Amino acid sequence: MPIKSRIRTVPDYPKKGIMFRDITTLIQDPVGFRLVIDNFTQRYLEEKPGFDIIAGIEARGFIMGGALSYTLGKGFVPIRKKGKLPHDVVSQEYDLEYGTDIIEIHKDAFPEGARVLLVDDLLATGGTAMAAAALIEKIGGVVTEMAFIVNLPDVGGEARLKEKGYAIYSQTEFEGE
Amino acid sequence: MPIKSRIRTVPDYPKKGIMFRDITTLIQDPVGFRLVIDNFTQRYLEEKPGFDIIAGIEARGFIMGGALSYTLGKGFVPIRKKGKLPHDVVSQEYDLEYGTDIIEIHKDAFPEGARVLLVDDLLATGGTAMAAAALIEKIGGVVTEMAFIVNLPDVGGEARLKEKGYAIYSQTEFEGE
Repeated sequence: MPIKSRIRTVPDYPKKGIMFRDITTLIQDPVGFRLVIDNFTQRYLEEKPGFDIIAGIEARGFIMGGALSYTLGKGFVPIRKKGKLPHDVVSQEYDLEYGTDIIEIHKDAFPEGARVLLVDDLLATGGTAMAAAALIEKIGGVVTEMAFIVNLPDVGGEARLKEKGYAIYSQTEFEGE
Repeated sequence: MPIKSRIRTVPDYPKKGIMFRDITTLIQDPVGFRLVIDNFTQRYLEEKPGFDIIAGIEARGFIMGGALSYTLGKGFVPIRKKGKLPHDVVSQEYDLEYGTDIIEIHKDAFPEGARVLLVDDLLATGGTAMAAAALIEKIGGVVTEMAFIVNLPDVGGEARLKEKGYAIYSQTEFEGE
């Protein structure tokens, strides 16, 4: 598994008991990075075409989202933390383990009815992805698929998002490890 | 000027008197985004080749840096805000208008002696770029060039960085506007 083997596991980050799956070792390797982007590109050219624009979630989602916008010839829309986008935005609050966070999208990020591919590095609880999809829908977009490098199905995000009707794609999984 | 005309100016953001140059309108347009990445790619294939890896500054630098890593066949290294990288890091503090900020890089981001192309969206005071270069040098890298979409030469960052010996490339400028 040339992708999975390039991902570093950092124990007890950001806190005791968490096995953090660190994609920086994958993407600092030119072969690893290319493999990730080529896999996504093949999928969205061949198996799941039919979208208009790519949205990436701050911050790691910007790395893959930027590369994919190039390979697929689409524009790129950043979904950012509160206060980081300069023009008119819509906001979405979502729950963290302790407290809440807010993400935002520009109101004019794309035209009404746009079909949007949502990109991030890792799917755990799915809270951020769900909030990002809500933002896309608030401004009239439709999420065609959510694309991740890593899925952690044990954490439950995949099941939760599928229950809401979202299509999920990931390149590798860590399960019960 | 197909790049400059796609950049939106937001007056009084993030505070009164600042004319914020917003690249989101440029990159959400597939033609604009492709133009930016093709221009950078041509430069780093033809005029300034000879580097080993690309470093992008959080967060907007990740968008262009990710795309360029793909087109140029290099790995990508994220330079992030304090506390965001999970493994061993080195840190660099730098001055903001009020107070200071800290950015970090993984100690094992690249091997000693690596030649690094540094990418961000906009050059103003040059404070962040200078701190990012310091990080790269602390772990044994050499900055071959700093690449930006937008340069604001009036703010003085370009002059400051060139005085320190850094090579600067930008695709467009806003001056006295």
